[in-house]
Amino acid sequence: MIVIKIGGGGGLDLAACLDDLARLRAAGEPLVLVHGGSGPATALGEELGYPPRFITTPSGMRSRYTDARTLEIFTMALARFNTELAAGLQARGVAAIGLSGVDGRVLEGRRKETVVAIEDGRRRVIRDDRSGTVEGVNAPLLRALLDGGYLPVISPPAWSPDGPINVDGDRAAAHVARALDARTLVLLTNVPGLLRDRDGEASLLRHIDAGNNEAWEGALTVAAGRMRVKLLAARTALDGGVPRVVIADGRQERPIVRALGGEGTTISGE
Amino acid sequence: MIVIKIGGGGGLDLAACLDDLARLRAAGEPLVLVHGGSGPATALGEELGYPPRFITTPSGMRSRYTDARTLEIFTMALARFNTELAAGLQARGVAAIGLSGVDGRVLEGRRKETVVAIEDGRRRVIRDDRSGTVEGVNAPLLRALLDGGYLPVISPPAWSPDGPINVDGDRAAAHVARALDARTLVLLTNVPGLLRDRDGEASLLRHIDAGNNEAWEGALTVAAGRMRVKLLAARTALDGGVPRVVIADGRQERPIVRALGGEGTTISGE
Repeated sequence: MIVIKIGGGGGLDLAACLDDLARLRAAGEPLVLVHGGSGPATALGEELGYPPRFITTPSGMRSRYTDARTLEIFTMALARFNTELAAGLQARGVAAIGLSGVDGRVLEGRRKETVVAIEDGRRRVIRDDRSGTVEGVNAPLLRALLDGGYLPVISPPAWSPDGPINVDGDRAAAHVARALDARTLVLLTNVPGLLRDRDGEASLLRHIDAGNNEAWEGALTVAAGRMRVKLLAARTALDGGVPRVVIADGRQERPIVRALGGEGTTISGE
Repeated sequence: MIVIKIGGGGGLDLAACLDDLARLRAAGEPLVLVHGGSGPATALGEELGYPPRFITTPSGMRSRYTDARTLEIFTMALARFNTELAAGLQARGVAAIGLSGVDGRVLEGRRKETVVAIEDGRRRVIRDDRSGTVEGVNAPLLRALLDGGYLPVISPPAWSPDGPINVDGDRAAAHVARALDARTLVLLTNVPGLLRDRDGEASLLRHIDAGNNEAWEGALTVAAGRMRVKLLAARTALDGGVPRVVIADGRQERPIVRALGGEGTTISGE
């Protein structure tokens, strides 16, 4: 069982990703695909005259401000991407089933009642943000689909007691991987992995021993922005018993096979 | 097992429909919901500066001209409606799972290679239309979900060898009902049922005996536009062994319970 996450930020070779999923599925490996869709959501928001607004938290994280209209746009854009991926897999002979987190409560979370944003150096409390964090996964449903030979394709939004919420795709993938006792979680991105020096692809960190505090803190120090979110997602997966997480390059041929072969940044607990 | 179709053409009391689904589900009835989304698709197309174009066939049927961009818009609009319905059911304690026809090839069809349209009295052959007809349903997948206690919420597009296609929701619902040996197919609409006189709600045809040729032809004669499509969908269901189809009013409280109780137009084979 392998869980693969692909982002929606652009730059990935989607056809190569789907080819690899079909290859691995044909070899008998149970697979779950999780995806985000920040790029398509931003593009659709702009087309609709409702461009995204981003907020910066006190800890420096940047996230999409998700009011009710933004959640609608996000839902539509991700659903279209989801159908595109499911159709691409069907065309390759893979029985894919696209699900949003709302479907069967596949991704269940909790809305953040308040979000603190820093604007012009001042703290502002936002109360109408419809985003939150994944706390649970409907593993029995996913296992039933996998047993039936299907490849689930999962995307935000997640379900919450307050209705659908925007959640981070990397963290969602980590929760899916731990809920299914995956042997590997592959996070495909548009860089070769975690780089010590952001401009130098030769500075790739090939392995992070997450069981070694010093190594882990060192990795967190060089990780910025989205890469920091990926490392924290990796931690969530490892803490939940997933033995290996690979952050790897999704812009090339055979990206998943290469990631499983050790290309990219492999993070493990030992 | 009851299959319920709700349109997306507006006017329906969606909350009342969802309340009824929750009521029937709580009573132990296995249910499948099928929906269209012509209204949301038209609205989204207009918001995106790509309003729908309709074509009229030589037999007088009006249908959405579905080029690649229209299919994208249609997919997004229906997915948003699908998530809204699934979320509304979850909020009522029903484990709903939204699926497009592409997911697990739940709806499988064939693209019409050419569509003939009448424009200004002349025939025009359209070759890039991405619409077609449903020919099969993935019944084992739906049965597995129903056995797991889920309520599948199904919408176009359908899968075809040429990729996703726009299909008629009423016909899709009829195929789902026959594939699952449903005891009843309920088609909810924004009129009381089939009216002999389109302006008079008192002229409701309460029962059509589809086994009686004269009665059937008489019903077809008074049915215009969407109602004709519903009658043909009813025929598809009856011919496939579904004993009863009800075309009923979805604008009122308890619309499904009322339909099952005999309100609306009941069509049966005997």
